[in-house]
Amino acid sequence: MDLGSVIGLVLILGLLFGAMAMGVGIGAYIDIPSVLIVIGGSIGALLVAFKMEQMKNFVKIFMIAIKPPQENVPELIKKLVEYSTQARRDGILSLEAAANNEENDFLKKGLSMAVDGNEPDTIRELLEIEMEQTSERHKANAAIFDQWAGLAGAMGMIGTLIGLVAMLLNMSDPSAIGPSMAVALLTTMYGAMIGNIFGTPIANILNIRDADENLVKTIILEGIMSIQAGDNPRTLEAKLLSFLPPNERVSQFE
Amino acid sequence: MDLGSVIGLVLILGLLFGAMAMGVGIGAYIDIPSVLIVIGGSIGALLVAFKMEQMKNFVKIFMIAIKPPQENVPELIKKLVEYSTQARRDGILSLEAAANNEENDFLKKGLSMAVDGNEPDTIRELLEIEMEQTSERHKANAAIFDQWAGLAGAMGMIGTLIGLVAMLLNMSDPSAIGPSMAVALLTTMYGAMIGNIFGTPIANILNIRDADENLVKTIILEGIMSIQAGDNPRTLEAKLLSFLPPNERVSQFE
Amino acid sequence: MDLGSVIGLVLILGLLFGAMAMGVGIGAYIDIPSVLIVIGGSIGALLVAFKMEQMKNFVKIFMIAIKPPQENVPELIKKLVEYSTQARRDGILSLEAAANNEENDFLKKGLSMAVDGNEPDTIRELLEIEMEQTSERHKANAAIFDQWAGLAGAMGMIGTLIGLVAMLLNMSDPSAIGPSMAVALLTTMYGAMIGNIFGTPIANILNIRDADENLVKTIILEGIMSIQAGDNPRTLEAKLLSFLPPNERVSQFE
Amino acid sequence: MDLGSVIGLVLILGLLFGAMAMGVGIGAYIDIPSVLIVIGGSIGALLVAFKMEQMKNFVKIFMIAIKPPQENVPELIKKLVEYSTQARRDGILSLEAAANNEENDFLKKGLSMAVDGNEPDTIRELLEIEMEQTSERHKANAAIFDQWAGLAGAMGMIGTLIGLVAMLLNMSDPSAIGPSMAVALLTTMYGAMIGNIFGTPIANILNIRDADENLVKTIILEGIMSIQAGDNPRTLEAKLLSFLPPNERVSQFE
Amino acid sequence: MDLGSVIGLVLILGLLFGAMAMGVGIGAYIDIPSVLIVIGGSIGALLVAFKMEQMKNFVKIFMIAIKPPQENVPELIKKLVEYSTQARRDGILSLEAAANNEENDFLKKGLSMAVDGNEPDTIRELLEIEMEQTSERHKANAAIFDQWAGLAGAMGMIGTLIGLVAMLLNMSDPSAIGPSMAVALLTTMYGAMIGNIFGTPIANILNIRDADENLVKTIILEGIMSIQAGDNPRTLEAKLLSFLPPNERVSQFE
Repeated sequence: MDLGSVIGLVLILGLLFGAMAMGVGIGAYIDIPSVLIVIGGSIGALLVAFKMEQMKNFVKIFMIAIKPPQENVPELIKKLVEYSTQARRDGILSLEAAANNEENDFLKKGLSMAVDGNEPDTIRELLEIEMEQTSERHKANAAIFDQWAGLAGAMGMIGTLIGLVAMLLNMSDPSAIGPSMAVALLTTMYGAMIGNIFGTPIANILNIRDADENLVKTIILEGIMSIQAGDNPRTLEAKLLSFLPPNERVSQFE
Repeated sequence: MDLGSVIGLVLILGLLFGAMAMGVGIGAYIDIPSVLIVIGGSIGALLVAFKMEQMKNFVKIFMIAIKPPQENVPELIKKLVEYSTQARRDGILSLEAAANNEENDFLKKGLSMAVDGNEPDTIRELLEIEMEQTSERHKANAAIFDQWAGLAGAMGMIGTLIGLVAMLLNMSDPSAIGPSMAVALLTTMYGAMIGNIFGTPIANILNIRDADENLVKTIILEGIMSIQAGDNPRTLEAKLLSFLPPNERVSQFE
Repeated sequence: MDLGSVIGLVLILGLLFGAMAMGVGIGAYIDIPSVLIVIGGSIGALLVAFKMEQMKNFVKIFMIAIKPPQENVPELIKKLVEYSTQARRDGILSLEAAANNEENDFLKKGLSMAVDGNEPDTIRELLEIEMEQTSERHKANAAIFDQWAGLAGAMGMIGTLIGLVAMLLNMSDPSAIGPSMAVALLTTMYGAMIGNIFGTPIANILNIRDADENLVKTIILEGIMSIQAGDNPRTLEAKLLSFLPPNERVSQFE
Repeated sequence: MDLGSVIGLVLILGLLFGAMAMGVGIGAYIDIPSVLIVIGGSIGALLVAFKMEQMKNFVKIFMIAIKPPQENVPELIKKLVEYSTQARRDGILSLEAAANNEENDFLKKGLSMAVDGNEPDTIRELLEIEMEQTSERHKANAAIFDQWAGLAGAMGMIGTLIGLVAMLLNMSDPSAIGPSMAVALLTTMYGAMIGNIFGTPIANILNIRDADENLVKTIILEGIMSIQAGDNPRTLEAKLLSFLPPNERVSQFE
Repeated sequence: MDLGSVIGLVLILGLLFGAMAMGVGIGAYIDIPSVLIVIGGSIGALLVAFKMEQMKNFVKIFMIAIKPPQENVPELIKKLVEYSTQARRDGILSLEAAANNEENDFLKKGLSMAVDGNEPDTIRELLEIEMEQTSERHKANAAIFDQWAGLAGAMGMIGTLIGLVAMLLNMSDPSAIGPSMAVALLTTMYGAMIGNIFGTPIANILNIRDADENLVKTIILEGIMSIQAGDNPRTLEAKLLSFLPPNERVSQFE
């Protein structure tokens, strides 16, 4: 798991449970029907709002958010520049073995197309369609968590209203008012916790992961087009390094 | 009906009615005048906000949201590639019978235009106008449900204020305060339920259905342009499969 | 007046006044100073937020929202196709009489320019400037009602705060607290009513009317350019009908 | 000062102070520490949010909002058409005196560049940079007032919380609770007043003034390019009049 | 530190602590567990929402917001025009020494590329990639503070709900209700303070700093392209000065 996510989740949950324990004890904050209303209700609303096949990936998407596949971008650039050098020296067909062994699917596809002698425009068009469509699917995944935040908050409010109405109709025993209202507020609290610990932050990191993947794919696309065009590897490296922050730029020609 | 919608709606309504039943009974949460204010009032506001002819489709649009027409995209791509193969082998006129029997209206229209010998630019322009205009109408439909969420919430709040004012003017009998306030809160609860079970989620799924339909039409458009241009069916297939997620891509040439 | 607007407004106002009458009577909900604060205050804020000449059209814009000028689009397309046929048969100058008698100002202007022999680029540029500028003015009009919703809500809240402060400073007579607070809440209720019956819905329908008018003008523009270019009337009709939903498309050639 | 702004401000302030006076008197609504928290605090936050040099123009920008420089657009179009006529008759150099005496800086700059024989592309590029950069600065100015609305509201809420906490810790004297809470609510009231009388409306009118200025500059730019190209003054006038609403279009050729 | 930030922060904090001191004393507003919930909880949520490497720059980004690197734009333009003059007189190679001694990294890179004889398109492409990528990273940094505002507010609300529930379950001692509720409200107050003193304003100024840096880089890019093309220094100066507000434009040719 990603270190930041672990620290973050431990920090929040530790502080919140600590605060609960310091007062009336954690037990007072746990009410199974309230948990069901907020979690079940919001997931029910998500099932209406999204397609079944999108919702099936819910847990998988959550794992991508907190345990992302890593791509070493400086290493990737180094590899692309080496391919460029090799292609200029030995011809583009010499990259066939490299293409077959490549682990990054996007790079593999692009390289194979170049080795197979496809037109540059065809390669670019295919890779761009793939980039855009993948990104659309990622954004739709992030939207699930974004909507979850809103819907969990709303279900929390509905739950509190249900509890408040019940409390208001049963005010004969004044000593029961406090505890009834306490329970009624729990759904609002659960809704806010789900929305602000899982909903909004997960949606945000998913969009960042998508932007990162798009950057990697843009670098690969530029690299492949340049390799096929037979550009100077130094020029290619200078261009690809421009995508990185200055402190991560390492040239293999210096 | 779409399985996800059914499960989602059953889940939410089951949990909420269960929570009501556990406390003071479902009957205490049903107040016909409050229901009328929130549902009638918000639909009244929608009648001001949208055109009569848009509102007439309200129920039909709702049904599309929960019971969508399905298009099998891999099958569609297979068919387009077959048409492409046939057109290269026997000429584009050989697709006339296929065009006449085609069930997808968009594909039928495009194919017929190609068979009739229209210019590629004319075909593309017509199909793009059709795509854009259909999508505009779909977005306007989704907007109805999006606005419904906001307006139902607002009507719920107005209803609660009407009830609160009545309660505040009648505080001589303290035992009536609780029940009066309970009834006043019901409209807010109804507004939140409508907005977050029907309004926002239905608007969201309608926008997803529109994006799906646009993807299908984009694939059809690319296919028709490619068939007319006499492109290699393998190249066409590679391009169209790029629109799909990797695990759904099945080539008929392998 | 537009049927939808009438039904909508009658429905909302009927339900809300009915709810008031059922409880403590409509009279209890009417407080002239509160009405003045919310309506006067929000209109005052609109006078700061918009230009005097925009505000002068306030009532006129409201009437356009609920009683729109209607344009029969299928009829318009039929007319444009007939002009196209006539221009191909008798030359574009034969449309001079039609241009002079045309009631739609936009079509009249475009047709006259074509008859007068202006360059296609000049005609397109002028008509596009006119379309864009008109649409900008319409959007600014809709923005008035959109802002009204927010400002009326805010004035309602300010009024309630003024009333609450007064109530809190006068708590010596407990029996006066309820009625004072009831009056204080009225401004919030008025603000929500204005915002959600007139503000947001009127802004929405105005934007729909603008989109409708833009569609009509786009059809006219495409028609005029096509008439001047001497395109085949059948091709023109096919193109223009693509702007309509499938069930409204009627060809005069079939 | 702009008549609308005067009427608007007088109307709002009159109504609000009237409502205060009718109840417990205006004095009860004035609390200097509360005023300082909301105004001082929100301006402090603006000083963090914007650059010092932007904040220095705060009062100047406010004055532009309520007392705008007026440009008579029909007169401007008339002048541009006259310049066009003169340039065609006597050559573009004959406009040198007109350029020197021109009061509108943007028109003066463009005209001088045309008289000096600069390339059309150079003139267009310079004038467009100037338009865009000026508009960016205007939008940044409007953003100050937009942010003010939000920050004043937030400071009002913080002030109320400070007051509420103080009140809750001092509940031994029940008769002090009402007045303490009244004072606590004042900051929320001030925040809402600043935000909805000055913040949001001023930001809105500043954006309208910017759009107006952009329209004027677009007309000037089109005029200068047309004058330099030696276009027919009638064609130029028809084009420039298209930017105006129909009822303001007056041709000097009819 | 930037003067505006210092004045702003001193002003806000002085006013708020003053208001606290005037009432029940600052001590009553400090509750370490509440501080931990809001600050720790919101930073925990940020660690989930952003990547570890982004969060590591948290303090550094904050310092950039309140103590920005300054670039004197009129001086920069003067320098670019001088380089332009020198390049026309002595050839572009004569700028090699200037390029090596240049302190602005972006100008140094562009100038070196021009001196090294790279193609104009290559230079423009590299510099544009660098501009866009840097700006993307800046916007992601600003987003951290923007999200902080929302998450701190949410943690404040969750903390208040935890405190309210504890209070409602312990209502046997009426004298404890006030103080318990006071403590419960503190987290909401902290959340609002963090969000509106640090979150939103810092995000706003970071976006302004990014826009400023983009403007500087656009000027440098235009300057380098013009120097390489051998344009007239006067034309270059006129163009670059158009980026400035009128009162900052000083020509060295007058």
